[in-house]
Amino acid sequence: MSKKDQELPDRLFDTEDMHGYTTFRALSPGAEKWIGRPIKCLDHGFVYLVDYMGNDESVVQAARTSYGQGTKKVSNTEVLIRHLRRHFHNTPFEMVEFKFHCKMPIFVARQWIRHRTASVNEYSGRYSEMEDEFYVPEPGVLKKQSQSNRQGRDEDLEQGQKFDILQGLRDCYQNQYDFYQRLLNNHELARELARLPLSVGNYTQWYWKIDLHNLMHFLHLRLDEHAQYEIRVFAQAMARIVREAVPICFQAFEDYQLNSLTLTGLELGFLRLHADLFPAKKERAHQIILDHFGNKREAGEFIEKLVSLGMILD
Amino acid sequence: MSKKDQELPDRLFDTEDMHGYTTFRALSPGAEKWIGRPIKCLDHGFVYLVDYMGNDESVVQAARTSYGQGTKKVSNTEVLIRHLRRHFHNTPFEMVEFKFHCKMPIFVARQWIRHRTASVNEYSGRYSEMEDEFYVPEPGVLKKQSQSNRQGRDEDLEQGQKFDILQGLRDCYQNQYDFYQRLLNNHELARELARLPLSVGNYTQWYWKIDLHNLMHFLHLRLDEHAQYEIRVFAQAMARIVREAVPICFQAFEDYQLNSLTLTGLELGFLRLHADLFPAKKERAHQIILDHFGNKREAGEFIEKLVSLGMILD
Amino acid sequence: MSKKDQELPDRLFDTEDMHGYTTFRALSPGAEKWIGRPIKCLDHGFVYLVDYMGNDESVVQAARTSYGQGTKKVSNTEVLIRHLRRHFHNTPFEMVEFKFHCKMPIFVARQWIRHRTASVNEYSGRYSEMEDEFYVPEPGVLKKQSQSNRQGRDEDLEQGQKFDILQGLRDCYQNQYDFYQRLLNNHELARELARLPLSVGNYTQWYWKIDLHNLMHFLHLRLDEHAQYEIRVFAQAMARIVREAVPICFQAFEDYQLNSLTLTGLELGFLRLHADLFPAKKERAHQIILDHFGNKREAGEFIEKLVSLGMILD
Amino acid sequence: MSKKDQELPDRLFDTEDMHGYTTFRALSPGAEKWIGRPIKCLDHGFVYLVDYMGNDESVVQAARTSYGQGTKKVSNTEVLIRHLRRHFHNTPFEMVEFKFHCKMPIFVARQWIRHRTASVNEYSGRYSEMEDEFYVPEPGVLKKQSQSNRQGRDEDLEQGQKFDILQGLRDCYQNQYDFYQRLLNNHELARELARLPLSVGNYTQWYWKIDLHNLMHFLHLRLDEHAQYEIRVFAQAMARIVREAVPICFQAFEDYQLNSLTLTGLELGFLRLHADLFPAKKERAHQIILDHFGNKREAGEFIEKLVSLGMILD
Repeated sequence: MSKKDQELPDRLFDTEDMHGYTTFRALSPGAEKWIGRPIKCLDHGFVYLVDYMGNDESVVQAARTSYGQGTKKVSNTEVLIRHLRRHFHNTPFEMVEFKFHCKMPIFVARQWIRHRTASVNEYSGRYSEMEDEFYVPEPGVLKKQSQSNRQGRDEDLEQGQKFDILQGLRDCYQNQYDFYQRLLNNHELARELARLPLSVGNYTQWYWKIDLHNLMHFLHLRLDEHAQYEIRVFAQAMARIVREAVPICFQAFEDYQLNSLTLTGLELGFLRLHADLFPAKKERAHQIILDHFGNKREAGEFIEKLVSLGMILD
Repeated sequence: MSKKDQELPDRLFDTEDMHGYTTFRALSPGAEKWIGRPIKCLDHGFVYLVDYMGNDESVVQAARTSYGQGTKKVSNTEVLIRHLRRHFHNTPFEMVEFKFHCKMPIFVARQWIRHRTASVNEYSGRYSEMEDEFYVPEPGVLKKQSQSNRQGRDEDLEQGQKFDILQGLRDCYQNQYDFYQRLLNNHELARELARLPLSVGNYTQWYWKIDLHNLMHFLHLRLDEHAQYEIRVFAQAMARIVREAVPICFQAFEDYQLNSLTLTGLELGFLRLHADLFPAKKERAHQIILDHFGNKREAGEFIEKLVSLGMILD
Repeated sequence: MSKKDQELPDRLFDTEDMHGYTTFRALSPGAEKWIGRPIKCLDHGFVYLVDYMGNDESVVQAARTSYGQGTKKVSNTEVLIRHLRRHFHNTPFEMVEFKFHCKMPIFVARQWIRHRTASVNEYSGRYSEMEDEFYVPEPGVLKKQSQSNRQGRDEDLEQGQKFDILQGLRDCYQNQYDFYQRLLNNHELARELARLPLSVGNYTQWYWKIDLHNLMHFLHLRLDEHAQYEIRVFAQAMARIVREAVPICFQAFEDYQLNSLTLTGLELGFLRLHADLFPAKKERAHQIILDHFGNKREAGEFIEKLVSLGMILD
Repeated sequence: MSKKDQELPDRLFDTEDMHGYTTFRALSPGAEKWIGRPIKCLDHGFVYLVDYMGNDESVVQAARTSYGQGTKKVSNTEVLIRHLRRHFHNTPFEMVEFKFHCKMPIFVARQWIRHRTASVNEYSGRYSEMEDEFYVPEPGVLKKQSQSNRQGRDEDLEQGQKFDILQGLRDCYQNQYDFYQRLLNNHELARELARLPLSVGNYTQWYWKIDLHNLMHFLHLRLDEHAQYEIRVFAQAMARIVREAVPICFQAFEDYQLNSLTLTGLELGFLRLHADLFPAKKERAHQIILDHFGNKREAGEFIEKLVSLGMILD
């Protein structure tokens, strides 16, 4: 794998060129700080902010149009943003845009692209040669298949196994890329076919543009611990930028979505019925809840919530 | 107002014509029952099911493709659907479609159209003459402007006032429509201009097609007590149909979305800190919560939730 | 009608406040010029640019990511943009955003909202009082219903008729608004119901945000002579702004979409068969074409195209 | 490569099970015929129709709602559908839905997924084991990289080269899959990581649901000769089904989109200026056109159009 990623520059373009650009547009100092500054992700990937539109105040500005005089009572920017977020008035958050340049392994790109509300321009293996950059995980993130969670990793592997895995992976990548080069150069095979042997560990890149509302939805799903680690890294990088770009919106997102907890109708029914049970010992609660729900998995999820609420003593 | 709505037929087309249509498609007996059967909404409106694709099993079928062997463990249709809904695996619910024919006042249509994920063919006042049908509310739903909720109604009005309002409304509609007719017939004014005096109480109609996932999102917002009564009536009519068309999905929607309750990160923080406070008397809890949140409105919302959880004794 | 529209200020906010905002973002001098500057539309409406993201160069920047080294051969910005537009490579044009504040009659808003790819925050008649502003057409645009085009206007009306129409319209609006005020103030009726008598000629307003690709699609449909005059006025105002904001993209849009002409497969078949017919006299061509197409309307459309191509002598 | 594709059954489920399903829904005999019948695509892929909603008549039904009495004049289904398609009245075509089950190589899936208006449930390599099925092209489609078209193939390769390429490809796939199996079985590595070495030639599958309007847009782009051959095969399979499912719509699509030809504003300008030039010899026209356009590529595209119009004698 040829590229040295420590070479990532502080800013990807010369700020000298940019002196004296004055604008009448809404400005976010926190976003400006991140324009052109790549955050390294995995071994060869990155995310940086290319452009943005709007700031915290832009959300409020759109909401005030919507609610007219109705918002005069709630005059404070922070109070209004938090009110909007708490009550799922999402459209004003669509008024802010972010455009990122991202580089990631193809298997990550394949999860990412499922979010259909973004605009994308991806590097094309039909037009251009794919580079010799493949994802080799850090030993620390190599784990066994989880048995309880069909889409997760779990237990650690032994050092020797990790060494074998990584060595095998590097060899496999090398073979693929050598063959790709032979197809391109010896056989002059069309690029769109020559790429067939390249794996989903190969890096691609794209411009990705999305509004703040849909970005928060993406982050909600991809910051989650059930998201694959490798895409979570990119979500975290974007979250770091967005937190500074629209600090009030991001705080509201954290308080009302990211760190929230939803009780289902069935769980509420149980709580109303068994108010006197709490705070409860785990064993006792466990049996009653299981009897009530029938479904083991759903009961388990409820118990987890009650533990996190301090209502079941772990 | 000319049309008699009691004339709404049981089915809008002759079932004799439809004998012997056999199909290889997934079939929902609950949906078949509703095809062509209008449900009356408000004074001149209706909703009926025109067509549909898929049933409860179709959701499971798509999910199994997605999760492959991973779903074998969770073999039961109901258990799988409930699992998907609980964990926001929404895409399989996009695999079911409903197409409705709806007739509603223009102001209702204007709220409805904000849901951008549907396909719509609306009656056009440029092509065709608008009919003499306007929304006159039932006296029971005429209420004063709410003072606490800027977008709501509240206290009842006196009978005399109601009478005056409805009489004035009928007169105003009559004047508009008479003038519209004069513009069309005496002046031969283009229809696209002649409609200018017609109010947002005038009825329009459309075909509206949407997938089950987005329909449930629509219903979540429009069945809510904060939605305007007049659009809620249409949401309720569709909910009645959907409940029979995909009973397992609808039950999961009710249990996990409609009847759920979300605690914010701030509220969870409070509960963890003050576990020993509950169950609490309202006055005591009120003061501590208000001190904690600062924001009166947010504190009020939390107290409401705690009451509904039985943790505050009302 | 209370508001004086000559009062529209040159810029809607104080440029003093905006001194010294420097940005690292892509900048469009043509867009900056229009920020906050309203263009009057109809009697009480306007459009102004609130914010934007990107410029001509941003389209190229996204395309280069996509095509990698593939674009080096076509190094010039203008050549590349024109190539993209000509070949329906639309995604790079999604990378530029425009946010407008618009005020328009409700019947215009109802046509406009059908474009589902924009983000919208509209003034709410539930939250706030509707203003006493209604659309009264200029006498020059009052026309009779077209007989050939079911959705168009055609022949002029007599002066006396126009006078009657406009007087009647003003009276009707006045009655509506007086009744609205009585409902609000005398009866304290909820705003969401009090608006029932207000017509689709009443003005509303919104923030409207859309990317350049979808905006060009909107403009293509709404600049068309078959679009209703009243929405065309708004499309023209936005076109004026976009032309200066992204001049190269707009020129390509005009050359390759707006001013293009599409020949159907059937028309191409005819031309190949009857190459020797042209240039033709209208009568002769007319008969042969009608015989060929069967369908009168389709034949007529083809003849129009041939006239505009100079192949039929009108 | 283990799976035998000749094993593709005539229908994927037992039609015995389906006897006697009668429905009130719109029915398309042409679509019914294709439900559950896979069309083989490439070496291991397929497309089959899972479900559908609507038929030609459904498009007309929606349009009539829209245009009200306005469509009575154009009473014939075929005439109306053709009129709608010719004039880009696209929304009625959104009222028909198709749901396909498709199996394709990952690099094809990556092009396909760029169409954001569909609903997708894809097989997940996190949940389930990827199968030992990889795309090995037919020798006939192996071509050299085109020099004139950066994203195309062109000249044929020698037999010996083809043999080497295919042998190398099979070996590379075998190595990847063996290593994948070792990672899964010997190291028990999590599936979401074990898939890293698997190439974009590996097969995946999905349920794909889309409305007729957006499907025709997809087909327009992917039936084009510039689309990669491997995705074109899938587009052709779906076109075959859609042609029988909605024959009138499909014919209109072919006549008005697929086989149409668009002349740009610049080309129209040229034709009006040089009406007397045609029919012209290629050499003469070539020089004048080149002088007029400046841009070589654009001139070339115009000449191609004129040849196909019979205006330039090749």
